[in-house]
Amino acid sequence: MTKSILVINGPNLNLLGTREPEIYGAETLDDIKDKMTEKAEGLDLSIDFRQSNVEGEIVNWIQEARENHDAIIINAGALTHTSVAIMDALLAVDTPTIEVHLSNIFKREEFRHHSYISGAAIGMITGFGAIGYLMAIDAAKNMLK
Amino acid sequence: MTKSILVINGPNLNLLGTREPEIYGAETLDDIKDKMTEKAEGLDLSIDFRQSNVEGEIVNWIQEARENHDAIIINAGALTHTSVAIMDALLAVDTPTIEVHLSNIFKREEFRHHSYISGAAIGMITGFGAIGYLMAIDAAKNMLK
Amino acid sequence: MTKSILVINGPNLNLLGTREPEIYGAETLDDIKDKMTEKAEGLDLSIDFRQSNVEGEIVNWIQEARENHDAIIINAGALTHTSVAIMDALLAVDTPTIEVHLSNIFKREEFRHHSYISGAAIGMITGFGAIGYLMAIDAAKNMLK
Amino acid sequence: MTKSILVINGPNLNLLGTREPEIYGAETLDDIKDKMTEKAEGLDLSIDFRQSNVEGEIVNWIQEARENHDAIIINAGALTHTSVAIMDALLAVDTPTIEVHLSNIFKREEFRHHSYISGAAIGMITGFGAIGYLMAIDAAKNMLK
Amino acid sequence: MTKSILVINGPNLNLLGTREPEIYGAETLDDIKDKMTEKAEGLDLSIDFRQSNVEGEIVNWIQEARENHDAIIINAGALTHTSVAIMDALLAVDTPTIEVHLSNIFKREEFRHHSYISGAAIGMITGFGAIGYLMAIDAAKNMLK
Amino acid sequence: MTKSILVINGPNLNLLGTREPEIYGAETLDDIKDKMTEKAEGLDLSIDFRQSNVEGEIVNWIQEARENHDAIIINAGALTHTSVAIMDALLAVDTPTIEVHLSNIFKREEFRHHSYISGAAIGMITGFGAIGYLMAIDAAKNMLK
Amino acid sequence: MTKSILVINGPNLNLLGTREPEIYGAETLDDIKDKMTEKAEGLDLSIDFRQSNVEGEIVNWIQEARENHDAIIINAGALTHTSVAIMDALLAVDTPTIEVHLSNIFKREEFRHHSYISGAAIGMITGFGAIGYLMAIDAAKNMLK
Amino acid sequence: MTKSILVINGPNLNLLGTREPEIYGAETLDDIKDKMTEKAEGLDLSIDFRQSNVEGEIVNWIQEARENHDAIIINAGALTHTSVAIMDALLAVDTPTIEVHLSNIFKREEFRHHSYISGAAIGMITGFGAIGYLMAIDAAKNMLK
Amino acid sequence: MTKSILVINGPNLNLLGTREPEIYGAETLDDIKDKMTEKAEGLDLSIDFRQSNVEGEIVNWIQEARENHDAIIINAGALTHTSVAIMDALLAVDTPTIEVHLSNIFKREEFRHHSYISGAAIGMITGFGAIGYLMAIDAAKNMLK
Amino acid sequence: MTKSILVINGPNLNLLGTREPEIYGAETLDDIKDKMTEKAEGLDLSIDFRQSNVEGEIVNWIQEARENHDAIIINAGALTHTSVAIMDALLAVDTPTIEVHLSNIFKREEFRHHSYISGAAIGMITGFGAIGYLMAIDAAKNMLK
Amino acid sequence: MTKSILVINGPNLNLLGTREPEIYGAETLDDIKDKMTEKAEGLDLSIDFRQSNVEGEIVNWIQEARENHDAIIINAGALTHTSVAIMDALLAVDTPTIEVHLSNIFKREEFRHHSYISGAAIGMITGFGAIGYLMAIDAAKNMLK
Amino acid sequence: MTKSILVINGPNLNLLGTREPEIYGAETLDDIKDKMTEKAEGLDLSIDFRQSNVEGEIVNWIQEARENHDAIIINAGALTHTSVAIMDALLAVDTPTIEVHLSNIFKREEFRHHSYISGAAIGMITGFGAIGYLMAIDAAKNMLK
Repeated sequence: MTKSILVINGPNLNLLGTREPEIYGAETLDDIKDKMTEKAEGLDLSIDFRQSNVEGEIVNWIQEARENHDAIIINAGALTHTSVAIMDALLAVDTPTIEVHLSNIFKREEFRHHSYISGAAIGMITGFGAIGYLMAIDAAKNMLK
Repeated sequence: MTKSILVINGPNLNLLGTREPEIYGAETLDDIKDKMTEKAEGLDLSIDFRQSNVEGEIVNWIQEARENHDAIIINAGALTHTSVAIMDALLAVDTPTIEVHLSNIFKREEFRHHSYISGAAIGMITGFGAIGYLMAIDAAKNMLK
Repeated sequence: MTKSILVINGPNLNLLGTREPEIYGAETLDDIKDKMTEKAEGLDLSIDFRQSNVEGEIVNWIQEARENHDAIIINAGALTHTSVAIMDALLAVDTPTIEVHLSNIFKREEFRHHSYISGAAIGMITGFGAIGYLMAIDAAKNMLK
Repeated sequence: MTKSILVINGPNLNLLGTREPEIYGAETLDDIKDKMTEKAEGLDLSIDFRQSNVEGEIVNWIQEARENHDAIIINAGALTHTSVAIMDALLAVDTPTIEVHLSNIFKREEFRHHSYISGAAIGMITGFGAIGYLMAIDAAKNMLK
Repeated sequence: MTKSILVINGPNLNLLGTREPEIYGAETLDDIKDKMTEKAEGLDLSIDFRQSNVEGEIVNWIQEARENHDAIIINAGALTHTSVAIMDALLAVDTPTIEVHLSNIFKREEFRHHSYISGAAIGMITGFGAIGYLMAIDAAKNMLK
Repeated sequence: MTKSILVINGPNLNLLGTREPEIYGAETLDDIKDKMTEKAEGLDLSIDFRQSNVEGEIVNWIQEARENHDAIIINAGALTHTSVAIMDALLAVDTPTIEVHLSNIFKREEFRHHSYISGAAIGMITGFGAIGYLMAIDAAKNMLK
Repeated sequence: MTKSILVINGPNLNLLGTREPEIYGAETLDDIKDKMTEKAEGLDLSIDFRQSNVEGEIVNWIQEARENHDAIIINAGALTHTSVAIMDALLAVDTPTIEVHLSNIFKREEFRHHSYISGAAIGMITGFGAIGYLMAIDAAKNMLK
Repeated sequence: MTKSILVINGPNLNLLGTREPEIYGAETLDDIKDKMTEKAEGLDLSIDFRQSNVEGEIVNWIQEARENHDAIIINAGALTHTSVAIMDALLAVDTPTIEVHLSNIFKREEFRHHSYISGAAIGMITGFGAIGYLMAIDAAKNMLK
Repeated sequence: MTKSILVINGPNLNLLGTREPEIYGAETLDDIKDKMTEKAEGLDLSIDFRQSNVEGEIVNWIQEARENHDAIIINAGALTHTSVAIMDALLAVDTPTIEVHLSNIFKREEFRHHSYISGAAIGMITGFGAIGYLMAIDAAKNMLK
Repeated sequence: MTKSILVINGPNLNLLGTREPEIYGAETLDDIKDKMTEKAEGLDLSIDFRQSNVEGEIVNWIQEARENHDAIIINAGALTHTSVAIMDALLAVDTPTIEVHLSNIFKREEFRHHSYISGAAIGMITGFGAIGYLMAIDAAKNMLK
Repeated sequence: MTKSILVINGPNLNLLGTREPEIYGAETLDDIKDKMTEKAEGLDLSIDFRQSNVEGEIVNWIQEARENHDAIIINAGALTHTSVAIMDALLAVDTPTIEVHLSNIFKREEFRHHSYISGAAIGMITGFGAIGYLMAIDAAKNMLK
Repeated sequence: MTKSILVINGPNLNLLGTREPEIYGAETLDDIKDKMTEKAEGLDLSIDFRQSNVEGEIVNWIQEARENHDAIIINAGALTHTSVAIMDALLAVDTPTIEVHLSNIFKREEFRHHSYISGAAIGMITGFGAIGYLMAIDAAKNMLK
């Protein structure tokens, strides 16, 4: 049966492609969604792709995943570094989670080196731009075998 | 006249009973609501029981309490450790506030040892599970005499 | 042509005038809005004045400013000290931004001495009460020449 | 059968009522003892109420509790922040323990924010004055069911 | 009666216009003096404009202000971050003080983020270049009403 | 033309499969080598797979990569957290580098949260076990396009 | 009427004269007692001179001072750096207190640079050897005028 | 002539054998005393074996050792990490001292990694359980040659 | 022969009596000078009393003391906490030095708890107001015997 | 059957006896080897005694111990404080390990107070000079019973 | 044409030769001046050699160097560790600067390990005594080629 | 007699001239060797010039210097910041040592500001590029007089 993956994008990722392209690359969030959907189909997976600027909405989505999805791929954006609530939501549901970042957070400001998400995720993929999302699908596919 | 207590529950507390029961216990948030309501009635108090995953919504509720409630009992969940906005809301209104936590936050991860809520609350009850909410009613009753 | 300035007020600023007047002064947020509007008119500027308790909503407003406004004046309140998401939104749009605080944040608690907004703003005005907002209009007028 | 609770008070609590009443309240330690005894009787519990200024004596009492008491309620006063020996004594015996503080230790000097007792207690009640001791009896009653 | 404002400039500000213009702008200190004098006249204020590279001389000037001036506008330059003596002089006299910086000190090296002046000033204006001095006159005018 | 990838494994990775399998998994380093070789062939890449317990030898290998390889995939093991020399070698050559870890280093001891390798790598893949090495080939393939 | 001064000496001060004379000098504690008594008599003061190695006993003595003495001179020895209980006892009684140290604690190990006693004392005399105790009598005499 | 060794055991070591045996082992303090006495006899040494929960009493014992014993073996328990007074007592007497711990204190909580005793001891033996006391006799025998 | 004592007062002490009297007392610096001169005469000592707001001038004075004075009494004011140059001057000359502070620096802001002077002084007298200067004469007299 | 103990000595220990004898003693490493061999024989143990200045070689030796030895005694010298690789090697093999240091590392520079070896060893013996190696044989003998 | 080098010496260096010779050597500042002058002549350089105890005077001299000198050699003495103003002066002028220290500042007190001068200098020469000044001439000669 | 100087170059210095020339300059390590040899000959010194990427090999070389060389010039590269073993080797031999760095390590990343070598060297020369090695010869020549 087709497994479902919830892809969550945090604050400001809706600006992708126009926002600081030297850091985040030129692709838009829709480009990423399309590539993920295409790749997922080839692997018999479905993609539920969302973006929000509101921490509480992301918490809500994660809670829903417990019933509706088999894995979570999350790029929480700036909330990566500040949200204990998202970390707790991921710990509360037992849906396996993969953390993705477009830029290499360890080459940026000091406060971006710490991730609350990591404490609740299987693993992290950081620094590979939009390709990182596709790598996450491979990782998810492997986990869901 | 019956005094009104606003009971605020923060992110992920809606999962209570199903989320990591070894930490948070087996009772659901509805169980707690029922017990509080029952106890409050016996003390001529009324309970307005709410839960939200959104920091801004909790700030709104606290602001309303100034007019509509006589005391606040708050378990801000993960926002306990990150939300200056909730602290400021509590400081801005002068409704007496009691901080509650289900687990003993001082026996958990280091980042859970600090509470912004404490700076704006009468006192804290932590580690007694759902019973802590009932103890908070006693404390409130005593303050409102 | 009349330039437009987006004025953003963060959590609890809606309580202004009633909340801890010894710290924040006796004027209400509406008083400030009126004074700003009056002063802006004299300088051929328009003011779009908003307040929210929700971090995500403020992020949304900043994103919209890219198309609709020429400058941002922001008093992010408690979110000043905790929101990387607002900082990132300001970095993502290239609308020039002025940071304002009513009280002198450097004379208050240690955790209020650090501002994430500063990393994305032209400059900061802090400690002058409601007058600070009017000074910010002068600064904006000067930048927009 | 009537359960026995050992109530331990640490250094300077014998001055209660006369010492800095704006922080600790006007009730004496004897007042608290009387109220606890009265409340305990109604719940079929007995209270063994003690005070000492000597860390080693408190360690001795905790060790004895293993044989003679069913629960410990402890306000270790200043030793809360400095005594690993008391923490170790509590860890060594398996008598369930409740930590109480009269003032809200999180609103006082930084060095009072850390408690060694917390690492060995079920939970903490802080900031409710003498009422906190009575709330602790409720918590103990509930644990001993 | 015309009020008098003492304007103090600290070390290296005499190089303004030639020193690192990408940080401090192209205007010279004389340009700023002229603009301040002109603006002050329109507001019925007088400006006493000085610069020194010697901490002790600045302390002397602040002490004199008690008798001779109604307000102080100070850009202490590098001494902002190291001089407790200037802070103490400002605390010792009760002349209201406004802190100004040309560059946004919060976007520069870590050691420039802390200001001893702030602890003794009404407020701070930072990052607006030479305009900041003129904004300070407005703030002073308002305080002296 | 077939591109060549140097795969470097640091101290103790030769024990893989027998060493703490609950952390590092049951596959041996030879298993990983075989899977990588197989996958690389399908992508027209060649794999040069090595392991050493000696920091200086790894530095030597990285220096050679400048002439002989098109990309580096490195799991420096314990040296990740201590070796500035390896970081400097990677910075000195301009061969694009991908950092891999079997376990999620952010869920382990505090001293494993910092990586010197990150400062010299395109990105990091951590926590996906042996699959991480295969994901790294995809990332390398994409970079070498 | 003759005023009474309680002189408290903490752990190991009974060894004075024999213990590390290069740090603490060659006079014994009895020598100091005799000199203090002689000097006190000349100033119409009486001296109650004590030494203990037990923190709790020192707390007891301080509590008694409230009724029986007009000032306290205390050299708490090693407890200076570790005892919150002694600090709290001094805060609880309102007997004016003078802190004395034989050696200059600021020229010794880092952990001896912090004194809990200071937070509850009028002032400190450190580094003058046995003479410091006599200087303390002068200070006390002056306070008791 | 038979040399005498003072063996000092700090707080809670009287509970040995019953207290957390997974950390401290199953032998009682009397078992250790018997083994030490037996071993000492074979080496022409005598053992004076004591335990106290009171810091001041341990300070007293150390002071007496100067006259009555040739070496000290000390396991100060929890006071290892908090007592400057015991450290100072050991520094004040010149009896050679050996520090012993049953568990490996470096594998336990962070606050147990620092020992004030170490600054005044010849050396430390930690982690070997009751055997550590016997090893200490060998070390003492060797020092007293 | 009459010995000479150099008394150095640092920045802002010339304002004494008018500056924050609740911290520094109501006596002026001239009052202190007069009292010191009077007391010194009775002890066959002479006083050379100076004040400066310039660090370099104080360094100059200390250097001269090597030839012209037998002891130094110094209250470096704000420079206590920032001036390595004064510390080095005191270390360079071998004139014995006594550190004085009017207020108890350990009960004030954290940054006033550290003194560079202490590293080069015999001892410190802090918290006794103007009396502290007179106590310093006694200490100097004793040192010069 | 005779058990085999691998004894590993880290960098610079080959200089023993000539290197800073006031810290490390006058015995050479060969002296220690001889004494260990002699003592081991009496206990039916064999000693494999090695020294290396190369971290990677020590890692190799530890890995071999898994097959060839029953216990490890290690004095890693300077690598004690810097080598995560040696710690990981010890964790990877399950050969019981005893940590030895000649000098008392807790009485030396701050950076020598932390040992990565401790996290992977049964226990530590520090400060007893060459005797410490012999004590380690006793500890090993006891563990291998 | 002969190039001119400004040599600046900070506080207390005028005492050289008499001040703590075990740290700073036996040569006087005049000896150094003579040696530098002699060496400079041989290299067709001129030396302008100065010393001041006043930070502001040193700032003045650096500012003048922009017009009058080709390079700066500076030993700022104690101001090395505290003066942002000197650092800023060096950054403001673009005269190449060489930092010199007589003693090895990294073998002294912790607070002497940090230099503000370094952030504005080509390089540092530390620990070689008076020879360091002569080495600095070689470095300057090389830079000015 | 001709004195011999051992010149040690640490990891990655073999890449000199090709590696990040904007930081390290365009000269190769052979260029430096040639210049040093030429200069040494003129001063009746011989140069033994080596490079290694292996910490242990550098430790070996330092140990040999005790017998074979009169001074050491060392640029330990990245090992400067991480190797206690090299520091200990330098402390163990008593060959005078000069520390050299091509770039000014104090203008680079924070972790490059600390040098373990400094604790064992006469002095440091940093920031002068290849010339620094030649300056070191002068310093060595001077020391060996």
